Parts: sequence; structure tokens; C-alpha cells
Amino acid sequence: MWTFLLERQSRVPLHEQIASQLRERIDSGYLPPGTRLPASRELARTARVGRNTVVAAYEILQAEGRLDSAVGRGTFIAEPLESSGPRRSQLRPRRIDSFDWSPLLAREIPEGGGRLTSPAPAEVIQLDRLVPDPTLYPIADVQALTQEIFRREGAGVLNYGPPEGHQGLREAIAQQLTEQGCGTRPEEVLILSGSQVGLDLVARLLLEPGDTVVTGAPTYSNVLQVWRFYGARVLGVPLDEEGIRPDHLHALLSQTRAKLLYVMPTFQNPTGLSMSPERAREVLDVAAQFGVPVLEDHFHSELRFAGMPTPPLQSYDETGQVLLLGTLSKILFPGFRIGWLATPGRVHERLLAIRTACELAPALFPQIITAEMFKRGLLERHLVRARAELSQRLEALQETVAEEFPDDVLVTKPDGGMTVWVTLPERLDAEELLVACRRRGVQFAPGSWFFPEGRPRNHLRVTFGSEPRDRVVKGVRLIGREIAKALAANVSQRSPRAAASPFL
Amino acid sequence: MWTFLLERQSRVPLHEQIASQLRERIDSGYLPPGTRLPASRELARTARVGRNTVVAAYEILQAEGRLDSAVGRGTFIAEPLESSGPRRSQLRPRRIDSFDWSPLLAREIPEGGGRLTSPAPAEVIQLDRLVPDPTLYPIADVQALTQEIFRREGAGVLNYGPPEGHQGLREAIAQQLTEQGCGTRPEEVLILSGSQVGLDLVARLLLEPGDTVVTGAPTYSNVLQVWRFYGARVLGVPLDEEGIRPDHLHALLSQTRAKLLYVMPTFQNPTGLSMSPERAREVLDVAAQFGVPVLEDHFHSELRFAGMPTPPLQSYDETGQVLLLGTLSKILFPGFRIGWLATPGRVHERLLAIRTACELAPALFPQIITAEMFKRGLLERHLVRARAELSQRLEALQETVAEEFPDDVLVTKPDGGMTVWVTLPERLDAEELLVACRRRGVQFAPGSWFFPEGRPRNHLRVTFGSEPRDRVVKGVRLIGREIAKALAANVSQRSPRAAASPFL
Repeated sequence: MWTFLLERQSRVPLHEQIASQLRERIDSGYLPPGTRLPASRELARTARVGRNTVVAAYEILQAEGRLDSAVGRGTFIAEPLESSGPRRSQLRPRRIDSFDWSPLLAREIPEGGGRLTSPAPAEVIQLDRLVPDPTLYPIADVQALTQEIFRREGAGVLNYGPPEGHQGLREAIAQQLTEQGCGTRPEEVLILSGSQVGLDLVARLLLEPGDTVVTGAPTYSNVLQVWRFYGARVLGVPLDEEGIRPDHLHALLSQTRAKLLYVMPTFQNPTGLSMSPERAREVLDVAAQFGVPVLEDHFHSELRFAGMPTPPLQSYDETGQVLLLGTLSKILFPGFRIGWLATPGRVHERLLAIRTACELAPALFPQIITAEMFKRGLLERHLVRARAELSQRLEALQETVAEEFPDDVLVTKPDGGMTVWVTLPERLDAEELLVACRRRGVQFAPGSWFFPEGRPRNHLRVTFGSEPRDRVVKGVRLIGREIAKALAANVSQRSPRAAASPFL
Repeated sequence: MWTFLLERQSRVPLHEQIASQLRERIDSGYLPPGTRLPASRELARTARVGRNTVVAAYEILQAEGRLDSAVGRGTFIAEPLESSGPRRSQLRPRRIDSFDWSPLLAREIPEGGGRLTSPAPAEVIQLDRLVPDPTLYPIADVQALTQEIFRREGAGVLNYGPPEGHQGLREAIAQQLTEQGCGTRPEEVLILSGSQVGLDLVARLLLEPGDTVVTGAPTYSNVLQVWRFYGARVLGVPLDEEGIRPDHLHALLSQTRAKLLYVMPTFQNPTGLSMSPERAREVLDVAAQFGVPVLEDHFHSELRFAGMPTPPLQSYDETGQVLLLGTLSKILFPGFRIGWLATPGRVHERLLAIRTACELAPALFPQIITAEMFKRGLLERHLVRARAELSQRLEALQETVAEEFPDDVLVTKPDGGMTVWVTLPERLDAEELLVACRRRGVQFAPGSWFFPEGRPRNHLRVTFGSEPRDRVVKGVRLIGREIAKALAANVSQRSPRAAASPFL
């Protein structure tokens, strides 16, 4: 835009060459009215001419009425004079968007789209977001590492990285998984731009329209979108306090040829509950019996507040049938968009080929910083702090629930993570409750979002990761009072049954 | 891994509690042999106990033979003693990857996968990569902005960003496109994690298996992978010096119902050539006549070395049938993975829904930095420098070609960008030439990669963006000499026709 083709041997003085090229760009509409010109000093440097040359060029155009200058604000392209006729930008026909796209679009987009909760005003207490809040992020470490790595590695960190991911980060993740019993080798780890991309990749790997996917019910709402996008049918298996029920899973897989089983063994979203090691083995055994691949979502297993971490389901896998999906978005922060898939070699190669064809490679720089955080123990140090803080928030939430929630409301008791699952008496409707709560300044996620079918309306997911403790308490109190009000109002209208189970 | 559940009121001393929990993790195999323990000072801080407590716990386990310590190296989990029996990690059956994935995989991966050139040793001159080299990146600006934005915005920049992209960056891109005649509104701009994602998104938007896509031949090799992944048939239209030939395009579209036309009007990859404005209008007219949507790839149009920038094809579009795809990977650097799609509102909404379902949102932080680079004129300043440097490299390349290349080899003469297209006499084979050149320490991309069909073997793409000038000269000279050698060796073997056209 500010490059000039100057003929330094020409008889035409340089300032006139610049003025004439600028005039052409102004009159053609390429530089529209209101565009700010570079300061003369700056343009002089980039065009390699004296500053006076630029000043002289600007003066010519100003005298012609093509430029305006305002003291202290700079020099701008002027509006065209009435007499000079329209410039090209005015001549360009206004696009009317009359082209008919509808018959061309390939697929129906599944209802709802991905659910990134829409931004709410800051005063609204957001107990609907499953994400740590920024006060938990180790920003000082990130800042210091950023500086250090720019100094140490230079501009090369802004080039393309390897398609499979940064080797140091692959090693760190393999090491962590090995410590958790999976015996992972670095070459089995594929780094992703966030774990949603991993859900999408696995769907691309396996799903054809009409295929069946099995998941717990309730389950992570965003997986439903992805599978439906690929035309899959999604069936839900009921949960109990220990996760997916193996008897129901067995019955379902006996009746249906499923292409994929999706599980979140630890701090399941939305319930917050974890499988026992026995349950994990039982579920894996059923999947093995029917030869159904398992996608295990390990999204924030490291956020256990006390006791031994649960080993991933993949650590019991003897045949390579479990694909393990992880992310740093919940245990660190989402902004680096780093996820990973740890899979047996042949699947890894296939996933890498699809990902390279469709995305090339994930951003290198955040991977280098994250690898250093693993290596120096900064991630572990962060986790210690994050667990302590989240555990206090959960405790505060539970105290508030005990004080404020009516007795016939059930709330799960997780050992970690960021969510609890609330079950109302069946006559209440969580979506109506949400409307009332929003008026009071608090949001949660209605439970119906999380069911592949049936969509019962008497559940809600409440998170305690994205707001500080005092606001968690305040928000949960407001929800409790709205539930009490709704119960009082509804008591006479419908049957007075309390919730039969926290899941169904 | 290093979190302990300590009961501070217990009669069991804290160091014994820590020792016992560590013992459990060691014996269960959760902490495998060789794992390095945190320094006592560090563990003391995170567990909120005195340092002596940690030292005492370590001493207990060391006495038991569960820990080893080496002066200056730290403390490690020891190998289990023969007598103590295997730990869990030894018990875990070695995964044998016997699960049969082959009948489950949904799609054939198209041959080749995405082509990120495989890394070569640093001494190999890489004239095969269409990417600016790191010496061109404005690293000082990026570093300074990073610090400033961390300070100004705090940890929130590491949270999720808006699914449609950072508003400031959408505005900057809309402003730039408006200056180029497109009249783009910010709400029409969707920010992507790189432009390959945009190719993939448009394919998801439009393509069903069996659909036809039309592109220039030769064309960008990575688009072929994406379309084939979606089961599309790809047909090529021959090019001349001004780009896609409208007469051939008309003939092809008369015979075939195409779902998409892909064009790179400026510094086309691989030829480096640009459409004249007349040609751009003619091509758009043909597409309009047949109602075929146009995907315009604007990947490095800003790298024009002199003269007026070419307006995008989209600036002539009156009905909203052109989707404009851009990227910062070539005009800035690839590491931020930032691309964008500027599309009419209804298409935009649809693309946003697909992207949100399958990827959530692009990384926020690089978008904020890039928006500032636009706003402060740093991108423009960078472009001035990059154009000057690239233009000198092209000039050096052309001088070397004039000196070293045999007369019957044709080389395109672009006005910008980073590539030239070399056409050898038909009897020569660029893939054989590549083998010879690699032995001499220089790489280029064989032309056959860039053709959807036919795949003639007598072309090569040579880039001058990813190596400094002296290495471009050296590499081109080596290629020239290998061509001369091959010509001398081949002259008697096949028919002596020279290249008939630089494209076919």
C-alpha cells in the first residue's frame, strides 16, 4: 500500500513520482477516504528517500485537495470533491448477496453448533463454563518462558513446526502417561490444536454416515455435535455413581454394531464422577468382547484433589483398542490450544495423514513453552496450586448446597475436576430455572444439553472452575433460592415425586 | 503426582505420612523406576511442610531401597529389588497392538498426505519451501508486543477467544480488503487456525463424495489432498501467462456440473504468475454464467514488488459468489497459524457453525498481537522490508538463471511472491533431476506434484523465499548445472523437442 516504484535516474523528481503514484491510488479508490498516511519520517525510511521528499509529495496532494492533515492527528485521504467525480470504490457495484447458496451446501449443520457459552456481562456469575478462570493461570511463568525462548531459539520458533508435534512436548506427554501406567512412547503421541480437533479427527478416522457411536448419558455436549456432523447415530448408556453401566453397555452392544465407544473415566463431564479401577476394567472388557474401539477422554484427570490418581483406561488395554485423548485447556489454560492423541502406531500414522492434509501442523511456539513447563516441573507446581484452589471452591460449593438447597435435590460429590451435577425433583424444569437464575445474575448449563436422546429436563451442570470462591458461593446460593422458589410454586401443580436417581 | 493428602492433626508424623504415600505410589508402579523426585525444598513448598520433613521421608524410603540418590543429580525411584517382587508397571501386560483397525477405518487417505516438505539437514539448500525464512520475521516487534499485551491484558489472553475470531483482527482484515476494493465488513471475516483449515472448511461446506472441483493446472498441491479426502473429483484447466484460460474453463463447465472453482489470481502457486484484471473478470464471468462458487486464495498477494496491487477477484463479485481465503503465513510468518475467510453473511454463519462444532475457537493471543501489528502499521513496515528483500532474491535468481540455465529451459517471470516455475525440455524428468540435485545439496519441488491429472514430469517449482540470497544463487546454479548435465546425457536418447509451452 505504501510501496513506491521509484526511478532514481529519472528526470522526474522523486517527490513528484511519489505524489503521482499516491494520486493514482487515491483516485482509483485503492486508498479510500479516511485512510491515514504514514508519518513522513516513516515513509521516508521505507521508501529510502529524504524526509523532505515525502513532505513535498504530501504538500502537492494536499494542495490538490486529495489529502487532509490535522495537527497532532496525522495526514488522511480526503473525501473526494463534488466536481472530481466518484472514485473507484464508489463505482464498485454494491454486492447484493443474491447468489443462491442453498442448493450447494453439502450437509446439514447439527442443531446448536459447538457450545462455547456466549459471553455474558462480567457481573453475571458464570457457573456454566468448564474452564479454569484466568486468576489460576501461571501467567508469570508463561511470560518469563516466552522471553527466554525467543532469546534462545530466535525467529525460527515462528516457522512451521513438525506435523506430528514438537518432539520435546511429545516426550513430556509420553513420560506423564507412562507414569500413569500407559507405557506410552513419544512416537505414539500426536499433538493437536486443542482436543476438539481430536474428537473431529477420530470421527474422520472411523465414522461413515449411519454409523453408531455409544457414549455415557449424560455426556460432553460438544461430542454430540461432531458425531452428528458426520452423520452418526449417537446412543447413550446410563451411568451410575461409578460411570457407564457395564450391563447396559453389554446389552446395547449385543443389539447394535457400534463403531466407537466414548468414555470419560475421571471427573466425567457433566457429572464430575469417576470410574473405579474395577469399573474401568469391566467397561473395557465389554468393549473388547465386541471389538469396539474406545475413545478415552482424559481432559482433566490430573485435577484430583487428594489421593492416588486414577490410571487411564488405556493402562489396562492389552491390544491397542483404546485411543487416549488429552488437552491442556483444563489443567493449564485453553489459550495455547494444545491437545494430544496417544494411539497405537498404525492409527497414529493414519491420524497424522488426515491432520496434515486438513490442517498442516499445529502452532510450534506454544508447544515449546508447554514442553518447558513440563520439564521444569512448572506444570506440576501449577497443578498443586490449582488443585488446592479448586478443592476449596468445591468445599465452599458443598457447604452452600448444604445450607441452601432443598433436601430433595441431589448433588454429585466429585473428588476433583470442576463440575457437579444437580438433579432436581422431576417436576422441575432446569431450562425454566435458568431463565429465572439469569435474571438474578447467575448462569449454569441445563442438563438437557448433555443427553444424546431423551433429554430429561430436571438436571443442571454447575461448574466451580471459572469463578473465584466468593462468586461460586454467591452463585450457588442464588441457584438454591431459585430452586426453592420453583419448588414452592410447583408443589401443587404436578406430581410430588422426588428425583429417583441422579442420572435418569 | 507429588500431591499428598496430609492429616495435620494425626498422630502419624507428617514425614511418615509422606513416606507412606510415596511408598504406595512406588510399589503400585505409578512412579516407575528412574523417575526423578522433586528437590526437597520444592516439595516442601508445594506440600506446605518443613524441608526437614521431606528430607526425613526421603531418608526412610532410601533406607528401604526404594529411592536412590546421586550427588549433584537428585533423588530417583530405584529399580525394585529381586526379592520384593514386581511392581505394577512390570505387571501390566505389554500391549501388543493386536486390535484389528483395518475394517473400521472410514476412508482412504489420499496418496501423499499434506506436503509439508520433510526436514532436510541445514546444509541442504531448500528451494522447495514456499515460506519466508526466519531472518525475515519481525521478531523484535513480536517480542515487544507480547510483553506489552501480557502486561496490558493479563492472563485473560490465555483463555478461550470468540469462535468467530478476535474483533480487532477481523476489523483490520476487513479494512485491508476494503482498501483493495472488496468492501468487506468485519462481520464477514472468520478467523481460522491457518488457511489449510479454510480449504478444509469450504470442502466441508460444499463437497459430497463424487462432486467435481475445478482448479488451474498446475495448482497448489495441498488442495488436491483435501478435496480427494472428501471424495471429490478434481479437474484441471490449463493456464497461460495470465492464469486460468477462460475458453477452456467455459468448455469444461459446459460439460461438467462443478461444485467449486479454485483460483489463485496473484502469484499463483506454483507458477508465480498473476491474472490481469481483464482475465480476472473473464474467469469470474464464466463462473457466474454456470453458477459455480469461486474459492479465491489470496495467500500472498501483498508481496507485489512494484506497482499497484491487483484487486482480488472478489472485488468484482456482484452477487456474493466468491469466498476469499487469506493467510498471514506467507506475508508475516506461519507460526501464529492465522488464516481467514471473507464470505457473504449466510455462508459465514454456516462456516462458523461447522468450525465451532469441530474446533471450538482459534487461539486468541496470536490474534491480538497480529491485530496490533496491523493497527500500528508494523505489518505494513514488515511488508516493505520483505518485498525489498524478496525482490532482490528474485533478481539474483534471474541473473543466475540467465548465466547457468540452458536456453531451451523456460522460467516464469513473476512480479512478486516467492516462486518461479521452470519448464524443461520434455525429454527431461524433474524427479530424476531432483535425485541428482539432492546429492549436490539442493532441493526443489517436482512439478508433477502440482497437477490434478496427467502429471507431466518436465516441470519444477523453485522458491526463493526460504533461503538467503547467496544460497538462492548457489542453489539455482547447482540446479542449472544438473539440468545441463542431464540434457547432455539425454540428447541422444530421446526426441530433441524443446518445451512447447511453459504449462503443458
